[in-house]
Amino acid sequence: MHRTKVRVVEDALDANNTIARANRDDFDRHGVTVVNLMSAPGAGKTTLLERVLGHHGLEGVRTGVLEGDVQGSLDADRLAALHIPVTQLNTDNGFGGDCHLDANMVRSAIPNLPLGDIELLVVENVGNLVCPAEFRIGEDAKAMVCSVTEGEDKPLKYPLMFRTCELVVVNKIDLLEHLDFDLDKFLYNLDAVNPGVATILVSAKAGDGVDAFRSWLAAIPERRQAAAAPAGI
Amino acid sequence: MHRTKVRVVEDALDANNTIARANRDDFDRHGVTVVNLMSAPGAGKTTLLERVLGHHGLEGVRTGVLEGDVQGSLDADRLAALHIPVTQLNTDNGFGGDCHLDANMVRSAIPNLPLGDIELLVVENVGNLVCPAEFRIGEDAKAMVCSVTEGEDKPLKYPLMFRTCELVVVNKIDLLEHLDFDLDKFLYNLDAVNPGVATILVSAKAGDGVDAFRSWLAAIPERRQAAAAPAGI
Repeated sequence: MHRTKVRVVEDALDANNTIARANRDDFDRHGVTVVNLMSAPGAGKTTLLERVLGHHGLEGVRTGVLEGDVQGSLDADRLAALHIPVTQLNTDNGFGGDCHLDANMVRSAIPNLPLGDIELLVVENVGNLVCPAEFRIGEDAKAMVCSVTEGEDKPLKYPLMFRTCELVVVNKIDLLEHLDFDLDKFLYNLDAVNPGVATILVSAKAGDGVDAFRSWLAAIPERRQAAAAPAGI
Repeated sequence: MHRTKVRVVEDALDANNTIARANRDDFDRHGVTVVNLMSAPGAGKTTLLERVLGHHGLEGVRTGVLEGDVQGSLDADRLAALHIPVTQLNTDNGFGGDCHLDANMVRSAIPNLPLGDIELLVVENVGNLVCPAEFRIGEDAKAMVCSVTEGEDKPLKYPLMFRTCELVVVNKIDLLEHLDFDLDKFLYNLDAVNPGVATILVSAKAGDGVDAFRSWLAAIPERRQAAAAPAGI
């Protein structure tokens, strides 16, 4: 019974990877770099994106957002108000809705993405620390936001999520003085599951660290080109 | 394609409900009432359980905990330190792990539960606001913890979770003065998806509301007996 289940999951992930590669080909054809941004519910992904994409935008990098939610378009509406091209993708299928984006869902949204007009696409995944980490969507980079209100133990409890990301944004540091959160312990736990991973300490509310995250995001397309060049693509 | 997918999901939920009924029969046979406690990661389920189950325990109600996690036994270890019978259930299957408990996972844990020694079993589900709400496990009641740090919009973004619970514990209210969180707006959004649902405002850290949650939990077995009595069970 368990063996059968595992095989089905493997098949599903194989199929997902095939579609993720097709997405990647489409993004590449348009020269669009894709960042898959993940977190638990309420960690502050949207507020952070408002901060880095609002005002003067992303250091001249034309950016769009694909907004993944179970239901509704609350976050998409917040970002669209900043005059950023935003596409909503809802995972609600009549039951509770899917708890993550997969490659096929992203594929279904591609005709609605302004790929000719942007250089960077930020995909705001569904708030969840488990399944979003399991499904590639054709992204160039995975990053996550973790709020200090969630506790120091989260890297140990959701290791795949923390291991799969190349950047962990530690958000809501303005609340540190009101919490029992031990930042050193969190970073120690993070290093245990993903040694040497990049981190940025941020308060999306107060503004600390927002510039560093903006620069990280803005540099992704350049890094992608540099990585692609030697391969002669 | 989509129609096929929906049918498979329906079949899976049917199978889950069948197993959930079998779990419920086993719990009933032992006179054990079961509460399925859910939340996003880091909302404070474990800290709240430490508060209500520690010291003098649950007003004389013999209580055990079934601890659901992707990996590890951090929360189980915290609760076991209070001399509460705790059983660990890990959903890790070699990939990222399942993001929720389902009836079959709980079924696999039943031989390890001290059903003869307890009256109430609290199942601490995996931290996730989507899938745990979709899978019955044989519980008598579903409750959830939502932290004020997660934002007012969560009932609208994860409606099934908030709709399926008969109690919503609003935790970390000690942080309210440091947040932009609008409690009235949250309660308005909650009422929109689950009109009249019971709420308890809690600070698991400072102790506010903990007694009210303890009383709610302690009353569950009595309520269950009262509900069962007229049916002649």
